[in-house]
Amino acid sequence: MNDAATESLANSLTTGDRRALARAITLVESTRPVDRQQADALLERVMPKTGGARRLGLSGSPGAGKSTFIEALGSHLLDRDRKLAVLAVDPSSKISGGSILGDKTRMESLSRHPRAFIRPSPAGTSLGGVARRTREALLLCEAAGFDTIIVETVGVGQSETAVSAMTDMFLLLLAPAGGDELQGIKRGIVELADMILVNKADGDMATEATHAANEYRAALRLLRPATANWTVPVSTCSSIEGTGISDVWENIEKFFRVLGDENAIALRRAAQAIDWMWTEVDAMLGAALRADPDIAAKIPDLESQVRSGDLPATVAARTLVSGFIRK
Amino acid sequence: MNDAATESLANSLTTGDRRALARAITLVESTRPVDRQQADALLERVMPKTGGARRLGLSGSPGAGKSTFIEALGSHLLDRDRKLAVLAVDPSSKISGGSILGDKTRMESLSRHPRAFIRPSPAGTSLGGVARRTREALLLCEAAGFDTIIVETVGVGQSETAVSAMTDMFLLLLAPAGGDELQGIKRGIVELADMILVNKADGDMATEATHAANEYRAALRLLRPATANWTVPVSTCSSIEGTGISDVWENIEKFFRVLGDENAIALRRAAQAIDWMWTEVDAMLGAALRADPDIAAKIPDLESQVRSGDLPATVAARTLVSGFIRK
Repeated sequence: MNDAATESLANSLTTGDRRALARAITLVESTRPVDRQQADALLERVMPKTGGARRLGLSGSPGAGKSTFIEALGSHLLDRDRKLAVLAVDPSSKISGGSILGDKTRMESLSRHPRAFIRPSPAGTSLGGVARRTREALLLCEAAGFDTIIVETVGVGQSETAVSAMTDMFLLLLAPAGGDELQGIKRGIVELADMILVNKADGDMATEATHAANEYRAALRLLRPATANWTVPVSTCSSIEGTGISDVWENIEKFFRVLGDENAIALRRAAQAIDWMWTEVDAMLGAALRADPDIAAKIPDLESQVRSGDLPATVAARTLVSGFIRK
Repeated sequence: MNDAATESLANSLTTGDRRALARAITLVESTRPVDRQQADALLERVMPKTGGARRLGLSGSPGAGKSTFIEALGSHLLDRDRKLAVLAVDPSSKISGGSILGDKTRMESLSRHPRAFIRPSPAGTSLGGVARRTREALLLCEAAGFDTIIVETVGVGQSETAVSAMTDMFLLLLAPAGGDELQGIKRGIVELADMILVNKADGDMATEATHAANEYRAALRLLRPATANWTVPVSTCSSIEGTGISDVWENIEKFFRVLGDENAIALRRAAQAIDWMWTEVDAMLGAALRADPDIAAKIPDLESQVRSGDLPATVAARTLVSGFIRK
């Protein structure tokens, strides 16, 4: 792809062409150096068009019903003429995407809607790599005019911190059961939440859902909120019956109103971008070190000595780094 | 310091000479390249003598009484002929050390005890730097024969993850008050705890302490334990009256028995050492990049463009890294 092609792709993308968006995301996901160069050029070009979306992170326990929740919330806001993009950040999670992945039961109506865009997680890379590419996909979605972006993660791994670091607000979706059944959630995830939703508050489960919400509300009182000046709301909803969904959206709007008024979102995004830059620097330097064949050959032996306690970690690290920098 | 001096220091250190230990820690804390080289040589030499201690992390809310608690727990285990070293990891925290820092009211009896060693946090460096040096100080304390090491942190910052990554077991000390007063604790810290202690369970506060412990116990049921196969005990104690302290120590012994039986401690330490090595690699590479004057000159402008959203973080990072590696 040459400069003209990049410009043409950028133009199609910023007019909201969905196929151009899909191609652009494929480009940033590519690991080929030539593609990477084009991806950088494309991103630079579209940067002025980014920043216009509400960036929402969503995580949940397995079985909490994330896909049906996204469908319900998505329908609600598509009815309000918003444009929704859904991205996934877990290397293990193949979300959604009805037609994309052939799983017709998941997000079927969203995936067919002209103002919705669903993109599964890029395959076969490390979490760090996936998170870096998902940040870029998010920028591309903004450049394409999507005003609401949900970054989904499965809620059992390390990816929630990464999602929290690229979004404005973090939603946690739980199944209506307390105690043991909730222990599938990693502890740190509850800590990140700006909003907690107990889903499946319908039929036989309605009472249990209310009870679980009360338990979480009590537990949260003992913890400092993830976001200053924001008290984490805990509520119930039913994605199937559609109850509580408009309250969810109202709470999201309230969050952006409260934090937007004091410019907190802009400051958070600026800090996130700087952190991201240095994370990229670390990742690129580390990758360059590991890609050096002389250095890479030393790693297994050094790791084995460090693991067994025979060699101090600092000394092993210095051996690798000084070998790399001297070249 | 030459090789003979390093050998002599290592020998004095491993016979338990406290002044040698203090000098060795000063050496690993030094940022002078020549000292660093000697520190590496010293660490390599004493590695076979390390690994023998129980490594305990301790954090707590401001006002929870960490110093008096460490005094109480320390006295208890010194009475059992154990050897205790106390290290601090917060750049902001100047712990302890009665005579060391002139604050005679803090850990006074411990600081005078022949089998106790108290070392404040190294000054004037970043958290990352302090954490890296504290890990090494911990190894030196083990080489000097200390069989119990408490790494203290103030509980309001980012340092708890670092402490958790260098210790076997993480203790959280809280004041006997629920709700708002506990919100001084950062959320993520509760998540790291292997044991929660409500201190000051004496006099007027005894009932409140019991109540706070019950609240925490209930909240913890909703979270997955920090350590597999270990249910986080929540108990009350009074450092001043000495009540509950022997239970604390029994719980610590139980933790090591349970996890030692399945070799979990050894596996955790091996994984911690590997993580530490790569953290050091990242830090050293990042420091080398920032120390390059041509690269450093570019940083302010790139950061400003990334902060304002004019330049993608990835592109800024690549500018820095390719400029550095090309040289």
